[in-house]
Order: sequence, then C-alpha cells, then structure tokens
Amino acid sequence: MPLYVFNWEKGMMSMTIRPFILDGNEVAANIKALVEGDVKKLIAGGIIPCLATILVGDDPASATYVRMKANACKRLGIQSVRIELPGETTTEQLIREIQQLNENPGVHGILLQHPVPHHIDERAAFDAISIEKDVDGVTTQGFAQNAFGFAAFPSCTPAAIIAILDHYRLPVLGKHAVVIGRSPILGKPVSAMLLNKDATVTTCHSKTVNLEEFVRAADIVVAAVGKPRFVKGDWVKPGAVVLDAGYNPGNIGDVDYEACLPHVSAITPVPAGVGPVTIATLLKHTVAAAMKAQGY
Amino acid sequence: MPLYVFNWEKGMMSMTIRPFILDGNEVAANIKALVEGDVKKLIAGGIIPCLATILVGDDPASATYVRMKANACKRLGIQSVRIELPGETTTEQLIREIQQLNENPGVHGILLQHPVPHHIDERAAFDAISIEKDVDGVTTQGFAQNAFGFAAFPSCTPAAIIAILDHYRLPVLGKHAVVIGRSPILGKPVSAMLLNKDATVTTCHSKTVNLEEFVRAADIVVAAVGKPRFVKGDWVKPGAVVLDAGYNPGNIGDVDYEACLPHVSAITPVPAGVGPVTIATLLKHTVAAAMKAQGY
Repeated sequence: MPLYVFNWEKGMMSMTIRPFILDGNEVAANIKALVEGDVKKLIAGGIIPCLATILVGDDPASATYVRMKANACKRLGIQSVRIELPGETTTEQLIREIQQLNENPGVHGILLQHPVPHHIDERAAFDAISIEKDVDGVTTQGFAQNAFGFAAFPSCTPAAIIAILDHYRLPVLGKHAVVIGRSPILGKPVSAMLLNKDATVTTCHSKTVNLEEFVRAADIVVAAVGKPRFVKGDWVKPGAVVLDAGYNPGNIGDVDYEACLPHVSAITPVPAGVGPVTIATLLKHTVAAAMKAQGY
Repeated sequence: MPLYVFNWEKGMMSMTIRPFILDGNEVAANIKALVEGDVKKLIAGGIIPCLATILVGDDPASATYVRMKANACKRLGIQSVRIELPGETTTEQLIREIQQLNENPGVHGILLQHPVPHHIDERAAFDAISIEKDVDGVTTQGFAQNAFGFAAFPSCTPAAIIAILDHYRLPVLGKHAVVIGRSPILGKPVSAMLLNKDATVTTCHSKTVNLEEFVRAADIVVAAVGKPRFVKGDWVKPGAVVLDAGYNPGNIGDVDYEACLPHVSAITPVPAGVGPVTIATLLKHTVAAAMKAQGY
C-alpha cells in the first residue's frame, strides 16, 4: 500500500505516492562537505587529522570495513594509521597498543574494529581508549554521556541514524520508535538518542515476545539485529519510517527492503543507507577531535 | 476486577483473588539482614562503614530524606557524616567538598542529595564523586556500567525496584515494561536494568503521545514521574505489576493506588513500597564499598 508522502524533490506543496528513499550517500556527502573546511584549516596549520584503526585477527568482513574507513579518510585528506594485530593478541597486549595511541599526539581518533576475537575482553579494550580519542563512541563513559545528551562523540551508527532523520527533517518528537537490538554500540545508544529527541522508545531484542506486534505499533523502526531480511514487510505499519542498521554478508540489510517498500513512508536502503553515513560520522568525529586537540 | 494471583503466604499451589501488596519494608528488612554480617565483620576489624551525605540549601523535603538516610545508617551500625552547605554554595565549592570526601579514607560512600539549587551544575557535582564511593549510583560512569550490566552500585531507586521484583520472584523476562519518566537517576537507569533483565522496555515521558495506551499495554509499570496520583486506575491492564517510585509531598505516590488496586496483580504502596528498599540499597552499597576498600 503506497502512501501519500512528502516529495522533497518537487517542492513544498507537491506530493507523491511513492515511498521516500533515504539516501545515505546524500547525507554522507553533506556531512563530509561540512567537515572539509575544518580539514583545510588543520592542514593549513600544519596538522593532518589522523585516525588510527585497529584490526585484531583476520575476519574478512572486519578487514573490509577497516579498509573502507581508511579509504574514506584518504578521500577527505585525513591520515589513517592501520594497526593489524594477530588473532592471538591478548587483552593486555591490545590495551598496551591502545595506550600508546592514546599517548601519541599525532593520533586524534582511535577505532577498534568490532568484533574482536572472543578471548579478548572487548569492553576493557574499548574502555582503554581515552575519551578524547573515542571517535567511534564505544567507551562506557562515552555511552553515558550520550545517554545524558552531552557526548562529544556518540557511537557512529546511532549518530548516523539520527543524522538521517535530521537531514530529511523526519519528525521524532512524540513518535513511537521501536529499536530491534540492544547491543552496547548500537541498540542501546540509538534508543537513548531517540529518547533524547523526545521519541517514546521501545527497545526489543531476542527475548521480546510478539516482536511483530511491537514493530507494527512503531512510527519509526530501527533494525539493529544483525540478521539478513529479519524485518518482514507485513510487520511494518503503513507510513512508518524504517532505518536499517544491518549490514550482513552480501550487502543485505536487517530489513526485507522490497517487502517493506510498499508500506513505509520512508526507508534506508542497504547498501547506500546507514552505512555511508556511519563512515562520514566517523570522519566528522576524527576531525572534531583534531580540532579540539589543537584548541579550536 | 481482582485477579487470581499467586499467594506466597499460603504456599506453592494456593491461589487468592486479592492483589498482592509488595511490601517494601519486608524487602528492606531482608536486604539489611544480609548486610548486618558484613557490618559486624568490618567493625570487628576496627572499621566503621561510613556514609557522607551532602545537603545543599534548606529544602525541607531534602532535609527529611537526608535525615531518614542518616537514621537508617545509625540503626544498622553505619556511621554517617552529614555535610550541610548553604544554598549559595557554588559548583566549585561543592566539588571541592566532594573531592575532600573522595580523599578521606574514613568515608566509604558519598551521597549528594538531589536536587541541588538550580545555579549548581548537578551533573558536574555528581561526576566529582569517585566511582568507588558512588554508592547512590549517580555518576555518568556508574550509569553506563549499570546500562552495560556491570555496575558495582546502580542507582538506588532503580536497584530497589529490581530488588522488589526479585524478592517476590515476579517474572521480568519477555514482559513488556513501561517506565514513565526518563531522569538520569531514575527513569533511564531503571529502563536499562529492566532491559538487562530481558524485559521489552518502553520509556515514556512528558512528550509521549497517548501515554495511557502505552501504560495499558504494560505487564510491568514503573511510575517515576514525580506527580501525585498521576497513573489512573483505568490506565492499568488487568493483572499488571505496578511499581511506584513516586514520593510526593504528603507521602503520596505517582500512582492512584486505590484506583489501581482492583486491576493489578501486584503493586507497591506509598509509603512502605519502593522508599524503604531505596534506603536499604543505599546502606547495602555503603557497606559493600567499605568491604571493598578493606580488600574483602
């Protein structure tokens, strides 16, 4: 059932019956354009903003993500230092590596690619990142600052979801947002951010009973499950806004996009939805960290 | 409409038609009984567990709360140091006071009575409390540790609500919990704790549209609004469990208790509901902090 939705292309009073595709590339380009000026300012002052990425082990998907982030840095004039550690790295070794990056004044942001191998205490490793360099928003302290609404660097994917809502001026206040997923770097922080934007927020997860009914009640659905095409077309309320934070093997989202398309008023595709905005947010945070370190 | 609910007094197979009153005094007594042994152990070792309370200004309700907490300490053999600062105290002066208590090895827990006068940056003051002594669970770091499920000292009122659910073995897993309120020391942390106990959690607030409908869908209702008798009888689903964290002037809760009573399966009264458990939790945390400081 296609709905009458606002058509931004045709101007303020024009309407269309097709659902609106939330273009992550457009939002990302917008963020990057805003950041470029700061990059030039830093470089003019002799400072190259620098992101250190840490990859532990040889998971091919993680390696791809890190490479994509490094490439995105390069295109914007941000330096990236790639640290690759063997799968056998211990928690202590990883933390020592992070501490060295904390102390290195040439490094402005640190990204530890999630997930790390199971034997590593990921939480301890995340929390070893100094809050000033936690551009990926993974520390315990950063999480709470975000939940209280004053984080310098909220987690990148949640921040990307909010940026998309903001970019397309999709109303959040008073809306019922249903988040599927409760991970520390995605479901929990995006729930907190939507709450801080005055949505009524329901957080669902693997133990939720009648998940479909919760999704069906939502004005805004955030899928952060990590299961391909998990959210079905008939779960979605007519006119809902659907944001898909999933990125499963084969570039497949957590939402059954084709099945949801006829029901939604707006939706993010995968790829070219939340993904590029997440990377743009990481760059934005890195540059902001560099600006702050330089006293701007 | 009274429901058939489990009757704990009469044994496993017995049922009753009256709603179950969740007795905060019973839960509090239970917590205190568990703490008494540690208090004796500490005192035998020459250590008196000590809670420092800070009251800024002369709000009579706050003064009463602080006095209640100090009296509760005394009854359990816990020392309390009461610091009373004038209403004109600055944020900096308050933080200096807190830092002195952080450094004082004789003080094991620090409680800054909320709310402080408006001109003070309460968040900065809360966050000046060292995490080891944050027995009231008000720091940013403590909030996130709690949201991630590994806090030493979760906020006392949220922890009290969970303690009541646990004491009466009320099921939480898979239940739909609706929290009314999103304050940093009550609504947000109790939402996080219920989520960590596998409830599906909806957080409502002043901007929620159709609040009654959200409450009506809840298996578990937590009222943390700060408005007397805010939750009406006909908002509550038959058989719901209602926890009232309100404590308004005149010992009135956030829930219209008499009106809700016929609908609920279990409910906390005010007074003698969440309140005494909150205080018992504070004592438990203070003693735990002292035990930890002594290397137990």
